[in-house]
Amino acid sequence: MAAEAPRRVPVDRLAAFITRALQAGGLPPDDAATVGGLMAEADLQGSDGHGVIRLAPYLKRLRAGGLNTRPDIRIVSERPAMALLDGDNGMGHLVMSKAARIAIDKARACGIGWVGARHSNHAGPASLYLREPLREGMVALYFAVGNANHLPPWGGMDMLLSTNPIAVGIPAGSEPPVMLDMATTVAAYGKVKAKAKRGEMMPEGWMIDRQGRPLLDPTRADEGFLLPIGGHKGYGLALVVGLLAGTLNGAAMGRDVVDFNNDFVSTTNTGQAILVIDPRAFIGEAALRQAVDTVVRDIRASQRLPGVERIWLPGEQSFQRRQDYAAHGIPLPAALLADLRALAGDLGIAPLAD
Amino acid sequence: MAAEAPRRVPVDRLAAFITRALQAGGLPPDDAATVGGLMAEADLQGSDGHGVIRLAPYLKRLRAGGLNTRPDIRIVSERPAMALLDGDNGMGHLVMSKAARIAIDKARACGIGWVGARHSNHAGPASLYLREPLREGMVALYFAVGNANHLPPWGGMDMLLSTNPIAVGIPAGSEPPVMLDMATTVAAYGKVKAKAKRGEMMPEGWMIDRQGRPLLDPTRADEGFLLPIGGHKGYGLALVVGLLAGTLNGAAMGRDVVDFNNDFVSTTNTGQAILVIDPRAFIGEAALRQAVDTVVRDIRASQRLPGVERIWLPGEQSFQRRQDYAAHGIPLPAALLADLRALAGDLGIAPLAD
Repeated sequence: MAAEAPRRVPVDRLAAFITRALQAGGLPPDDAATVGGLMAEADLQGSDGHGVIRLAPYLKRLRAGGLNTRPDIRIVSERPAMALLDGDNGMGHLVMSKAARIAIDKARACGIGWVGARHSNHAGPASLYLREPLREGMVALYFAVGNANHLPPWGGMDMLLSTNPIAVGIPAGSEPPVMLDMATTVAAYGKVKAKAKRGEMMPEGWMIDRQGRPLLDPTRADEGFLLPIGGHKGYGLALVVGLLAGTLNGAAMGRDVVDFNNDFVSTTNTGQAILVIDPRAFIGEAALRQAVDTVVRDIRASQRLPGVERIWLPGEQSFQRRQDYAAHGIPLPAALLADLRALAGDLGIAPLAD
Repeated sequence: MAAEAPRRVPVDRLAAFITRALQAGGLPPDDAATVGGLMAEADLQGSDGHGVIRLAPYLKRLRAGGLNTRPDIRIVSERPAMALLDGDNGMGHLVMSKAARIAIDKARACGIGWVGARHSNHAGPASLYLREPLREGMVALYFAVGNANHLPPWGGMDMLLSTNPIAVGIPAGSEPPVMLDMATTVAAYGKVKAKAKRGEMMPEGWMIDRQGRPLLDPTRADEGFLLPIGGHKGYGLALVVGLLAGTLNGAAMGRDVVDFNNDFVSTTNTGQAILVIDPRAFIGEAALRQAVDTVVRDIRASQRLPGVERIWLPGEQSFQRRQDYAAHGIPLPAALLADLRALAGDLGIAPLAD
């Protein structure tokens, strides 16, 4: 049962297909194009758990009325360096791309800008929203409340927390930007699902069962919980990220989080936040880029442990993948392509020409 | 060789002693009192690796001319929501307490305020500088470049990174504030030194040797490296914290970091940053406090794994310790008290009356 080799699809074609599908799902053309572009961008950078694979569940939510196709995404509170957005239950991509633009403007005026969101929705990989600030030569941090709780507090069994991610982007000079995008658990839940799909066991340290014993079989994932990085430290990080991205904005956190894998109707009231920092107010843009290049090169050239072929910087592998995929197309598994073909048929839209 | 039981010392008396000692070391009375108060506060909250135990090395640095006793701590760049401070090689406590005050004012005016520092110095535990914002009902984040590199990049052996800490404080209502204060390594280096002092072995996962094997003997710590939390994730966190708190401010990072345990003369050019967020610009102060109380109580009351007696919130144990120590005095080990007695003799100051 060897899987068919993945086929390579150009990013533009993928974006156009997602856009058609979302339009068929009820989104206005402009909004469909924005979300389609960002979802294809997620696949382009290798965040394949957050790209076109989410199209079917998004459409399911659109059909079920769980997403507002005509949201009035508006600022409900504002100060010179911050804004709080109400996403009006629109797609998270629309809310957070607007948030990023506002935060950039605020950072330009005030040195830094913070924009929080409530009544948003899943917005794809956190690092997606660092790209616009990075293009402006700015530093950015992104925090989000995950859309399903898979993490109990340290020592506990009730899954009150999500894998609440943190992303940080810092521009470099001739080196790729430093881009960290991490869940606060050892493994993101998507990685557990991928292991199950491939019929592989998980390494010790990813999950434990309800007796606190290592859980290795990913098909038994619902009998256990994810483990936070560094034990109580990762639990603390997941908690404060949730409070900053959720509670502070009046968004869902803890018991209020809606599991978007099982409930396609309830408003998720997703909370996210982006912080943009203008280096011109600090060391200066050119000086920052040069200093980051130096740190990056010192790290890359440093002595390696036996058996280690290369020392990577955060975001560097994704950067290389992105260049490869941009030149040669994004590899999509045959099974996914078949699903997308069926989806096109259901929606009555032109298929992803392949 | 049973160690003598620690003696309890009231926080005011400890602060007054440290103040006398720093004055004898050359600090003006006001500055000595500020630093003395903050150092005693560190011991009060149980951060005993960052309190009075640092007095001797600070005095050694003062005597060696490695600290400026008359610093002109000034803003070198400013925008409405940010400031960059040059600490003029003064004590870090002076620099960062000034930074916190400026960040609070900026947050009040702009919704958020970020203050970075360069040419600062070791400032004690990160969480110390969250207290002032918390007293104002504000949220705060603190980032610092550690003052000695003990962490190689993931897969590497050159110690280019420090345990660069992150601290986050979020006010609650009738519950203690949520206060996270964590190094980005599994164990802080101070914990390794404490294990060595007690003649105990380290658990697996704290350190590895230069072959990548677990290192368990803390007396062999200089033959290995600390491990970051979550492997490559903790390495990424340590790196971005260093870039945000150091590089962005023009402070030391990577190869430039001065090991303050071995070099008492060179300017450390320590970098730190504090971000203050005013919840009045977001959900509102009262609403935030109430929502945080709910999350805290849900977590505390949640189901526990077999054998777990209590689920703790970040900062809760420190909060309880602080109440105990405030009422009954701070327990100081007999050996430390003897050192402080000798120090008082050397400096010709009144001893820590005990």
